Amino acid sequence: MAPIQYPNGKKPSSALSSPASKNKVSYGNRGMTLEEDLNKSNEFYLERGIAVIHKKPTPVQIVNVEYPKRSAAVIKEAYFKLASTTDYNGIYQGKYIDFEAKETKNKTSFPLRNFHEHQIRHMEAIIAHGGIAFIILRFSTLNEIYLLDAGHLIPYWNDQTNGRKSIPKKEIESLGHPISPGFLPRIDYLKIIDKMYFHNEDEGKVHK
Amino acid sequence: MAPIQYPNGKKPSSALSSPASKNKVSYGNRGMTLEEDLNKSNEFYLERGIAVIHKKPTPVQIVNVEYPKRSAAVIKEAYFKLASTTDYNGIYQGKYIDFEAKETKNKTSFPLRNFHEHQIRHMEAIIAHGGIAFIILRFSTLNEIYLLDAGHLIPYWNDQTNGRKSIPKKEIESLGHPISPGFLPRIDYLKIIDKMYFHNEDEGKVHK
Repeated sequence: MAPIQYPNGKKPSSALSSPASKNKVSYGNRGMTLEEDLNKSNEFYLERGIAVIHKKPTPVQIVNVEYPKRSAAVIKEAYFKLASTTDYNGIYQGKYIDFEAKETKNKTSFPLRNFHEHQIRHMEAIIAHGGIAFIILRFSTLNEIYLLDAGHLIPYWNDQTNGRKSIPKKEIESLGHPISPGFLPRIDYLKIIDKMYFHNEDEGKVHK
Repeated sequence: MAPIQYPNGKKPSSALSSPASKNKVSYGNRGMTLEEDLNKSNEFYLERGIAVIHKKPTPVQIVNVEYPKRSAAVIKEAYFKLASTTDYNGIYQGKYIDFEAKETKNKTSFPLRNFHEHQIRHMEAIIAHGGIAFIILRFSTLNEIYLLDAGHLIPYWNDQTNGRKSIPKKEIESLGHPISPGFLPRIDYLKIIDKMYFHNEDEGKVHK
């Protein structure tokens, strides 16, 4: 597969363009991203025995590696690849869980360019095989987070040929489910999954 | 997380230490590895609508990236990280599937150093949450492949303190299931999963 430019020209959160000293990556001054909040939430779910859900590593095409004596192998040339699946998957209450998480600075709609064809077809296949597939969308300027079943995303994706390249926020509010940021876990998306897929109506339920 | 040396000092199959021209990776002269055979098998399962199972990307700690104008971002410094999960997961017949695949040149036993603690704990958690977890072992010199339920691997892992650092091949033959290499798919491990977990005794069943 030919190495490709990173989708949307966006830097992945783990890639720092600033010079960094060897074996050391500073995350000091960055704000918490959606990815970091989800990773922390997944750690919480894992530690409490609630679910096993992980983010997949960023796909990278490795071209050149050096193997210095008595120290770690160094990748000297590599390129970002387009993911063939969504970023997150795992198991919750015996069910296969699969999702993608994206942020936008837009305030009135969520641009579909945040996704790509492979991911949409992947989510379609997951639904067909009896899994749970959804997206977590964050309007970063408004600090609002929504969970939207992939079944609602797919028609918007397929309708892009008609000109609309985004999902209006009003429709996300109507079709999706808001997630209030919390402390532990920061983004309790499984509470929404409980209600949507396990018909657990106990709103007071806390994951413990 | 501190960058670490690649487990067992082994080069990942996607990493080439030989000089390679930019944007080009040659796979020409390599024999088919277990990973490649499994990727092809998973492609087959995906295309036929049988299952959605993918290998996770190799985890890499990215330290330095250059963003040349009008061309793809280049990772100039990165390190291999230890995986926190197994390499493969997905969904089959509505069930969460999770496995690790390893090869050895040994002929009489499978060394446990091919796995690491995180992976074992991950497979334990998957079983606890109702998923299907197993390992695929290839004795490369003998060209024999076995599928072993993770529930059988865990006691061997935990018993290492008693001195034994490998699983005798005879015990893999007795507790595991041989997989005969085929053409399409090359490694039809889901046929074994059918028998083990779905009590499908129809030996003549062919995935189509």
